[in-house]
Amino acid sequence: MASYLITGTLRGLGLTLFKQLVSRPSSEVSIIFATARSESKALTELAERNPGRIFIVQLEAKSESSIKDAVKVVEEKLGGKGLDVLINNAAISYHTPAGIATMDLMKNARDDLDEHLVVNVIGVHMVTRAFLPLLQRGNSKKIVNITSTLGSITRAHFFKLVDTPGYKISKSALNSLTMQYSLAYEEERFTIFCISPGWLRTDLGGQHADLDVEVGAKATLEKIVGAGKEQNGRFLNIYVEGYPLYSGEDCAW
Amino acid sequence: MASYLITGTLRGLGLTLFKQLVSRPSSEVSIIFATARSESKALTELAERNPGRIFIVQLEAKSESSIKDAVKVVEEKLGGKGLDVLINNAAISYHTPAGIATMDLMKNARDDLDEHLVVNVIGVHMVTRAFLPLLQRGNSKKIVNITSTLGSITRAHFFKLVDTPGYKISKSALNSLTMQYSLAYEEERFTIFCISPGWLRTDLGGQHADLDVEVGAKATLEKIVGAGKEQNGRFLNIYVEGYPLYSGEDCAW
Ligand SMILES: NC(=O)c1ccc[n+]([C@@H]2O[C@H](COP(=O)([O-])OP(=O)(O)OC[C@H]3O[C@@H](n4cnc5c(N)ncnc54)[C@H](OP(=O)(O)O)[C@@H]3O)[C@@H](O)[C@H]2O)c1
Ligand SMILES: NC(=O)c1ccc[n+]([C@@H]2O[C@H](COP(=O)([O-])OP(=O)(O)OC[C@H]3O[C@@H](n4cnc5c(N)ncnc54)[C@H](OP(=O)(O)O)[C@@H]3O)[C@@H](O)[C@H]2O)c1
Repeated sequence: MASYLITGTLRGLGLTLFKQLVSRPSSEVSIIFATARSESKALTELAERNPGRIFIVQLEAKSESSIKDAVKVVEEKLGGKGLDVLINNAAISYHTPAGIATMDLMKNARDDLDEHLVVNVIGVHMVTRAFLPLLQRGNSKKIVNITSTLGSITRAHFFKLVDTPGYKISKSALNSLTMQYSLAYEEERFTIFCISPGWLRTDLGGQHADLDVEVGAKATLEKIVGAGKEQNGRFLNIYVEGYPLYSGEDCAW
Repeated sequence: MASYLITGTLRGLGLTLFKQLVSRPSSEVSIIFATARSESKALTELAERNPGRIFIVQLEAKSESSIKDAVKVVEEKLGGKGLDVLINNAAISYHTPAGIATMDLMKNARDDLDEHLVVNVIGVHMVTRAFLPLLQRGNSKKIVNITSTLGSITRAHFFKLVDTPGYKISKSALNSLTMQYSLAYEEERFTIFCISPGWLRTDLGGQHADLDVEVGAKATLEKIVGAGKEQNGRFLNIYVEGYPLYSGEDCAW
């Protein structure tokens, strides 16, 4: 029986992971906190149909005060218990068709190295740090950072034509952040890893992606549920039958 | 005959690399631009003794307008010629003795993930992007980013006890940025790589470091001068006889 919190559940992988968690028996998944940065009727209705099990919590990953407010809500709902699993899923990805040297800095959200680092790296750092005391009280002590194979520096040649340099750099930095957390908390028996969910048909992945989001979410959840201390500090990749790219073997940094 | 620009030359590795460049024959090193963010008598005197060969240029890596002003000065001094080699050396590193979860955000410069990313990653991006047109007119088309083995995610376990998580994460991100630039400009025959200069006795490295800064600078400069297109997109490491850690073999990402 484990409690989960997942960020960025308004759409895409986050929404799908959330729904798949809901459909698991409550003997396995006890409480689910779905965070979103704006209201959603669909999410609210789902919560109303599952009183006491599903909670929708407001969380803007760029805002430390929003994150702290979210921690307060979650702590109250848990009533003294800890949080078991934190899934950092929220992220942005923008294209830079004119090339890396055109990446702008906070001029607008597009083509922006700074904005990618703020949401995809510093946001994850702030969320993790804020929920750490609740996770320390939990049983599973699991932190999952949703990364991308695009963040693998080793494999960068393979993805040369994907025109999202700011996103790639931010995911490399997220991988490094994950490694640092995994080393810092291994003695406290935490399991902290990153996982690439596959190239999925979502707003971010686009419609030419490899997999339906349900397939990627299912494969990601399998890895998350199955992960134990041996997975600490690793860069996991999903397993999907028939896809050599999704062999289930760890990805190189 | 090549022109060089190196950032952060007020002290440490930057100052030493600069002096070693000065001591090379002008048939090999034609013009040297040493950038610093504040005035220094020592630098100014060196420039005055080498009129027309050495120029001290003001550059604050966090400020796009300061960088643009520096480009104007350099362009004028080059009088229509291109810049051959850019060495991004300026960086910060702060300790976080209380652990990764205490890394602050822009509250002060210490323990600060954000500040590390701004100087060590976004700063390098802004400098590189701004000098790119001059480098495109140069012959060597070489961009050197001074990184650290502490940025290697693969080797993170080895450096677990070094309490600089923000610095480590920023250097991983710098490595990824370097890879992205190297891929984007390989067709234009650029050579873009990162190199770890060794653990050196400087303000940043501390007095217990492995090597005198002169030794590290010499080994770094050997690699920089010797690098050609085969070094594009690589994570170089110095060679120092008798040091297994400085075997001269590439470092894993
Ligand atoms: N799709 C793929 O092919 C693919 C591949 C590899 C990795 N991934 C990773 O999978 C995760 C989910 O991606 P996705 O495809 O589901 O993306 P998506 O469809 O664009 O959804 C992104 C989600 O993150 C939320 N979000 C963005 N910025 C936020 C912020 N500042 N604060 C709070 N929430 C924020 C969004 O909320 P709003 O609705 O409010 O904007 C949305 O719910 C990401 O970490 C992504 O990098 C995706
Ligand atoms: N020392 C080591 O053991 C070691 C090991 C691996 C890699 N490195 C790398 O080697 C490079 C040089 O390190 P170091 O040991 O020489 O460090 P250092 O002694 O602390 O010197 C750093 C230099 O960078 C400049 N700088 C810092 N922030 C700047 C900014 N915002 N704008 C412009 N200049 C700025 C400093 O200028 P001010 O004097 O104005 O502050 C100084 O000249 C760095 O990239 C570092 O990461 C060092």
